[in-house]
Amino acid sequence: MNTAESMALDPTRVVGRSIVAGNVVADSTDSSLRFRSFAPAGGLNLPPMFQAATDQEVDGAARAAAEAFPVLRDASGSSRAALLERIAEGLAGLGDTLTELASAETGLPVPRIAAERDRTLFQLRLFAEVARTGDWVEACIEHGDPSRSPAPRPDLRRMLRPLGPVAVFGASNFPLAFSVAGGDTASALAAGCPVVVKGHPLHPATGELVATTIADAVAALDLPVGCFAFLHAGGARSVAVGEELVRHAAVAAVGFTGSHAAGMALARLAASRREPVPVFCEMGSVNPVFVLPAAMAANPTGWAQTLFSSVTGSVGQMCTCPGVVFVVRSAGSELFVEALEQAFRAAPAQPMLSARIHAAYAARIDELSQLAGVRATIAPEGPGVAGRPAVLVVDWNVFRSTAVLAEECFGPSTVVVECDDLDVMEEAAAAVHGTLAASLWMNDADQAAASRLFPRLERRAGRVVVNGPPTGVEVSAAMVHTGPAPASNRPDATAVGPLSIRRWCRPVCFQNVPDALLPPELKDANPLGIERWVDGVRNPPARTSRTAGRT
Amino acid sequence: MNTAESMALDPTRVVGRSIVAGNVVADSTDSSLRFRSFAPAGGLNLPPMFQAATDQEVDGAARAAAEAFPVLRDASGSSRAALLERIAEGLAGLGDTLTELASAETGLPVPRIAAERDRTLFQLRLFAEVARTGDWVEACIEHGDPSRSPAPRPDLRRMLRPLGPVAVFGASNFPLAFSVAGGDTASALAAGCPVVVKGHPLHPATGELVATTIADAVAALDLPVGCFAFLHAGGARSVAVGEELVRHAAVAAVGFTGSHAAGMALARLAASRREPVPVFCEMGSVNPVFVLPAAMAANPTGWAQTLFSSVTGSVGQMCTCPGVVFVVRSAGSELFVEALEQAFRAAPAQPMLSARIHAAYAARIDELSQLAGVRATIAPEGPGVAGRPAVLVVDWNVFRSTAVLAEECFGPSTVVVECDDLDVMEEAAAAVHGTLAASLWMNDADQAAASRLFPRLERRAGRVVVNGPPTGVEVSAAMVHTGPAPASNRPDATAVGPLSIRRWCRPVCFQNVPDALLPPELKDANPLGIERWVDGVRNPPARTSRTAGRT
Repeated sequence: MNTAESMALDPTRVVGRSIVAGNVVADSTDSSLRFRSFAPAGGLNLPPMFQAATDQEVDGAARAAAEAFPVLRDASGSSRAALLERIAEGLAGLGDTLTELASAETGLPVPRIAAERDRTLFQLRLFAEVARTGDWVEACIEHGDPSRSPAPRPDLRRMLRPLGPVAVFGASNFPLAFSVAGGDTASALAAGCPVVVKGHPLHPATGELVATTIADAVAALDLPVGCFAFLHAGGARSVAVGEELVRHAAVAAVGFTGSHAAGMALARLAASRREPVPVFCEMGSVNPVFVLPAAMAANPTGWAQTLFSSVTGSVGQMCTCPGVVFVVRSAGSELFVEALEQAFRAAPAQPMLSARIHAAYAARIDELSQLAGVRATIAPEGPGVAGRPAVLVVDWNVFRSTAVLAEECFGPSTVVVECDDLDVMEEAAAAVHGTLAASLWMNDADQAAASRLFPRLERRAGRVVVNGPPTGVEVSAAMVHTGPAPASNRPDATAVGPLSIRRWCRPVCFQNVPDALLPPELKDANPLGIERWVDGVRNPPARTSRTAGRT
Repeated sequence: MNTAESMALDPTRVVGRSIVAGNVVADSTDSSLRFRSFAPAGGLNLPPMFQAATDQEVDGAARAAAEAFPVLRDASGSSRAALLERIAEGLAGLGDTLTELASAETGLPVPRIAAERDRTLFQLRLFAEVARTGDWVEACIEHGDPSRSPAPRPDLRRMLRPLGPVAVFGASNFPLAFSVAGGDTASALAAGCPVVVKGHPLHPATGELVATTIADAVAALDLPVGCFAFLHAGGARSVAVGEELVRHAAVAAVGFTGSHAAGMALARLAASRREPVPVFCEMGSVNPVFVLPAAMAANPTGWAQTLFSSVTGSVGQMCTCPGVVFVVRSAGSELFVEALEQAFRAAPAQPMLSARIHAAYAARIDELSQLAGVRATIAPEGPGVAGRPAVLVVDWNVFRSTAVLAEECFGPSTVVVECDDLDVMEEAAAAVHGTLAASLWMNDADQAAASRLFPRLERRAGRVVVNGPPTGVEVSAAMVHTGPAPASNRPDATAVGPLSIRRWCRPVCFQNVPDALLPPELKDANPLGIERWVDGVRNPPARTSRTAGRT
């Protein structure tokens, strides 16, 4: 990296440049690296002109992260917590500047962005609390027994240790909560891993503004500048920047939120490295809803309203958008479909995230609505890149024989599948693709039917929701935001909630290691006062003697 | 599967056939499927003639496993524990028949096999205890708050749930502890996953004998026959049986212990499925040892003896065999090398597992010993497939520039690397490949040097051992038996110890799910009395009210 060309950070200004090792970089004025940000609502490009990161900048960011790693790993949980809290404070301090910018770049309304901002702050503060408490490392100690026969039992101590620099690929649809300072970044920093963010070309200004806030917090806390970097990626280098990052030897893990094709390409790339590294992809899913007969009979229009709101919220651009709804054909289901069609027919078309996303959605709805056996109800056209909400109604036999209907359609649409009876619905439940969430809408009289469907849904989903929409992912300890393929490539690892910290770590065992060399989490005296599992007992009284091996 | 052709199990007889759905199968007498077992010590083939599984048998085993899965998943921890204990009891009951057979097929001496058998029984019983206690599911409950604004807080409950049928590929070098009834099988059954074992062609009789014991235990406990299957693989179908299994839609995860090439081929195959499934490969590694100066000066011949025993035990056919040893050149290190060379020069050559493994080892030692700058000391030749213990001494500059010296050599050899000083040793520590274990031999006067090396070793190893050999992997809660690539493709997941159960599971979140539909682990009353994390408190007093969503 050509540091002679770098500029100091100004956290109030978006200048269109990447941030590497604590500085705004300006390696190059190569015009082929330029790209612009697009405002979906007005259809205009936004200032400034952005400059994609060069390969030297990618290398500089990864090397600085590698240098920062040992320091951040050995920094106390409190200092990592302080960093996360400082970032939250900085983002909160940006106020309307941040929400208005993100709204302009995504076309999502300011209140929706403000709610996402609050979620992002909550997430940073929750992870700070987890880092400060320190229990998340799963410390486990088994004292040795030198007198055991035939061989002495060694002293064994295990805990989660951070992997190293993490490359983060944020999402188009969540410019804050799943982007530069989103869950992946917050969890990686909490774990002790430096972060290099590949900026999203659909919200580069928002990304850069958030990135300056993070770099500012790193500097304020006197942590190594390599703890965080932000690389603009767009135009001719929208793919290359990320690929170079994933291939870089210093990168130890990758977090990705986005499309299936892009995620799996990165996973393959990481697997082809000399030393493969884990890639955690949170991709799209269909999030099927099963409405059971008694519940349907009791409240058909209420359920239609719940579904409509869930499908059209954020213009359907949610990874948990309910893309398929299974109903058993009945008088209730007819009212449900009628109410749904009426709502979709009158729904306003709202701007989607980009012209490309809009075009893909529009083409997909065109294609689906022309399929034999599909009854499509589509809202009127809107201006520019507005996505028209759409509901498609099909019989189970049509759905079963038309693979494309079961695939995710990114936008404000859903497919209602009419089943003849519960047997068919059970068959449908067994056939759904891996998904982030699956919902069961039921009441007391549906108990028996629910018992049949429930075990099938559990096998296909990361989260099973009763009587609610799949949208609305709580940030909390019990949350699971992942699922079998194609929803994710790592159904064992949630992308939301404190458990997501574990992704950036691996367990390490220390055998007969003297106390002086052990991380504080595993020292006999438990200086951090964390929860531990010692000789089969959780948090026993402190021990003073050691039976470890010779040292 | 042609059940008309199947035979009932006879747990005392090895007939050379696979076991599918509780029966000995005999689909085919196709002579192209035949293969024989080889006795390394005598160099003869052992009876009977074995018949590799047909594709229909692979399919039958996987389908039966899929059918058994919901039953085994919902079986209580106690009944899974009873199964594991019954298997242990059955294996113990085989007495010398089992140890002598395994010894004959592997060439490993009976006492070594008996120790491995005891480890296998211990492992089965430990996992039984873990399954019975039930705490391993990581139950986490967060009650809802309907009054929260702007949106009610949902009731969220999370726990680990089993993935489904697991395909197990055992190791050549551990016919019991890492094979048919080894850690992968025991942990998968403990998790509630049916198991289909791909038999190892180097110990098919041992495998079949153990498999009949497991199938017998499944039948005795009235569990579905599909809970376990064993597929012979050898001859023309030694690779195809495993590939068909990994490709089978019913298989939900794969456990593999063996070579890097074979493991990575299976991982790629699993990744190419329509729905990719996780593959946990525990492959080989170099397990470097770093002898620090003061420790070396104090006890050079003692360390030489420790190293020699660790390298030559089980004819070096251990995934934790110490393949490289770094020393700082000194009077002590000269004595160390001298003692080592003397020991290797006089060491007896012992039979290796197979003619192919022996040939590969012999060729590798030939190749290495002819490299410029390598001083090789090789034990005298032995009969048949005996592997000659070998120690190779090189300077750091030779080691650094000769990539093959840093690669695993499966057999009784090690490379001693002489470093000029501690700086060089630190450089060496940073450069070691991912490994299952790394060892640091030190005494009090080495404290400062140890502090420099330790953080580097921690980044490259699953386990860091002080003052002991890397061989000898304790089966216990704090153990970690995995490591960064190439040691494993899943450095986050141990293959040894109760934590290995987690591999066959993924977390599932239940949102606003009525108590009646929840698994017992998550029901409000905690009927199993397991350890849980409830509203941020571990195991709080029982609650009687619920604040879940509408049902």
